[in-house]
Parts: sequence; C-alpha cells; structure tokens
Amino acid sequence: MKPQALIFDVFGTLVDWRSSIATHVTAAYAEKGLDVDGPAFADAWRAEYQPAMQRIRSGKRAWVPLDDLHMENLMAVLERTGHAATFCPDEIIDLARAWEELTPWPDTCPGLMRLRPHHILAPCSNGSIALMTRLAKYARMPFDCILGAEIAHDYKPNPVVYQASCDALRLEPAEVMMVACHNSDLAAAQDCGLQTAFIPRPAEHGPDQTMDLAPEGDWTVTATDLNDLADQLG
Amino acid sequence: MKPQALIFDVFGTLVDWRSSIATHVTAAYAEKGLDVDGPAFADAWRAEYQPAMQRIRSGKRAWVPLDDLHMENLMAVLERTGHAATFCPDEIIDLARAWEELTPWPDTCPGLMRLRPHHILAPCSNGSIALMTRLAKYARMPFDCILGAEIAHDYKPNPVVYQASCDALRLEPAEVMMVACHNSDLAAAQDCGLQTAFIPRPAEHGPDQTMDLAPEGDWTVTATDLNDLADQLG
Repeated sequence: MKPQALIFDVFGTLVDWRSSIATHVTAAYAEKGLDVDGPAFADAWRAEYQPAMQRIRSGKRAWVPLDDLHMENLMAVLERTGHAATFCPDEIIDLARAWEELTPWPDTCPGLMRLRPHHILAPCSNGSIALMTRLAKYARMPFDCILGAEIAHDYKPNPVVYQASCDALRLEPAEVMMVACHNSDLAAAQDCGLQTAFIPRPAEHGPDQTMDLAPEGDWTVTATDLNDLADQLG
Repeated sequence: MKPQALIFDVFGTLVDWRSSIATHVTAAYAEKGLDVDGPAFADAWRAEYQPAMQRIRSGKRAWVPLDDLHMENLMAVLERTGHAATFCPDEIIDLARAWEELTPWPDTCPGLMRLRPHHILAPCSNGSIALMTRLAKYARMPFDCILGAEIAHDYKPNPVVYQASCDALRLEPAEVMMVACHNSDLAAAQDCGLQTAFIPRPAEHGPDQTMDLAPEGDWTVTATDLNDLADQLG
C-alpha cells in the first residue's frame, strides 16, 4: 500500500548535524581566539542527548522542548571543558541555536521535492516545533507540517510520538511510513504499525561509524538515499 | 518592530470557502441528479460553525478537531433539508472533506511567497493539523508549520490559541503578527499582545456582506491584500 504520508527522522537522516555543529562551535571558539576540536565537541554535546531525553521518557522529569535540553547539555560540556566563562550568556544562547542551522545531505532537498507531490511530508523528530520550523526554513526542506515530539509531549522511541503523528494527520499507522537512518527508530515505528524505510547515513557519526551501517530489521523499504526512495515509491 | 512570524486566519482571510463549498455541494447533488442552492447550503453549513465551537470554548464539551464538527454540522444541514438519506456514508465523508479543497484568493499565494523569505508563516486557524496540512497542499500555500486550535486544544478567539501558537515558535506575542479579515479575531490576538494586520475580504460572505468591511480597531497594519501587506512590511 502506497503510504499517504512520509514522516522523517531529521538529525542524521536529513541533515549532517555533526559537521554542522563542529563548524558552528569552531567559529564560536575562533571569535575568542581559541582552538577547539569541533567534531569532538559535537560528539560530546550529542552524547548528552539520549540521557537527557531518557529522564523525560522514563517519567522522572516533565517534558520540556529539545531546545532547553540542547542548552543544558551545552552548558554541561562547556563546564566540563572549563569554558563555561569563555562565552557570555547571549553567546551561549546563540551557540545552542546552532541546531537550527544544520546542512542537509546532498540528496535531501531534491528527494523531498520529488516525494512531495505524492505524499504528505513531515518531520517526526525529537526537535521542537520551533526548532524544526527554523531548521526546515534554513535548510529549505519542503515539509507540509511539523509533527514529532512536541505534539506528543514525549520523546522517540516512546510509541506515543509515532501514534500522535499519525493521529494528527487523521491517518492509520499503516498509511504512514517512517523514514530513518537509525534501526532503533524504525523498530519503534514498526511496533506501532507504521511502514518503515531505512536509508543508511554511514557518515553521520564521522569516519569511524560502526552503527546503523545496514538495515537490521524487516523494513518495508531500504533505499540508498531519498532519490532512491522516490524511485522505489514511484 | 518587524514581526518574526506572521500567523494567519485561513477561512475567509486566505481562502474563499463560500464559493468553494458551494461548488463542491453543487457537484455532489448533481451526481444524484438533484439541484441545490450551493451558496445557501454553504451559508447554512457555516452557520453551524460558531455554535459548535462555542460548546467547546465554554467547556461544555471536550475538544474535538474541526473535521469532526464539520461532519456533524453537515449531517445537521442534510437532516434539516431532508437529504440525509440522499448520500451514502462514504459520500458524506467525502463531502465533509470539501473543507480540504478551498480556493485561495488571487493574492494569497503570491503574497505568501513574497513574505516567506522574511518571516515564519503559519496558519493560526480553527482547522486541525490534518485539515490545514491538506488544504495548504491543495491550495499551494507555502507555510513553515501548522499552528492554531489543535496545538491548544481549544478554539479561537479563546486566548490560549494565540498564546500556544507564539509559545510553539518560542516567540513573545509582540514578535508575532496575526493576519485576519475578521476584526473579532484581531481583537482577541491584540488582547494577547500580538501585532495585528487587517485585510478586508468583502466577498467572503457573498454579495450582501455587511460585516468586517473595514478595520474596527487600532490594528498595527491595515492592508488591501497580502501583496500590500508585503509592501508595507518591507
């Protein structure tokens, strides 16, 4: 059955967050006359991501938007590296908003443009409505609406996030396809009854990536990139 | 202060619901070999709109999406005119979805395209995410995200709808401009601290319209149409 809507993981699947964050961080340090290992900083910042969300997924903390978690996680990395006082509060707020300016993979926008006449397209990301709206505008990703964590007030891979995204479109899960480069994301979506498409992004975590290099489940589609996905969905 | 986001009333302000609904209804009756006064049917259907929402705004009924109210209101009109049995359930569902296919005013899409590079654009309508997503796709209205009633689980002009739309963008109300052809909508938005833009749509209710022909408040901007709004906002 042809999916009426395609909903997308964003960080990794549609945009190259690691290189983009590394660039933003390197520029912010350079303005202070300082060197930094940008990719290592990006990895350290991202390493705080799952633990921060897990406190909310597990119910230990009430839901807050990812923008707030990114800010808290940035402070944690800066404090750990002894640079919390290097930047003034406004500069730290600006740096936390680096997640609104991430570079799409080369096939992302052309692929979305091909898919858009045939399907409703929306992010189903852990990013907030504000973050996804600004990122989509920056990266020129042509979505029809913004779905994901904020309308569920929870974080993937908790099932309510996938279910709330289908509900918001008034579609059955089987009418919706989750597109992601993370097998765990697809497994959670499949458990909710959604169709699934795996797209490998072997450079998401840099040259030494070991995870998610190949499909690890019985996904509806495996495609080399978004153009191949458009080919396969016809 | 230049608004960072423009949020729009949709039914009336951006699309000509009355002519579009009249056309859909006339076509549905014609398929049964029946005549109908399309504009009068559209007016009768729309007359149920405010009372249906008022039951939710007043707390007498839990929030349900506008799609469900449109369906209930359509059934009420069909029953009152003796035509409830003329259509089978699938045909009635199809007819209720006429609200997903409404024609934009001639200036709507060109105006939105001019505004989009400079502002975040989103509907702040009483329509659901599903309805606004499909209508925007049909009418090719280039929104950046879908805000409005569904993220607030209430209906305009209750203040929480305007506040929730600003909150979702992480903007202060003063950074957001509500654009509408209804003075009452703008009054409610202004009470929440938003900037306001009035655009008259003197044909919204057909040739005999008497309401909302002119601005009736101290709005931030009054514009003749969306192109004029783009001119005035620079």
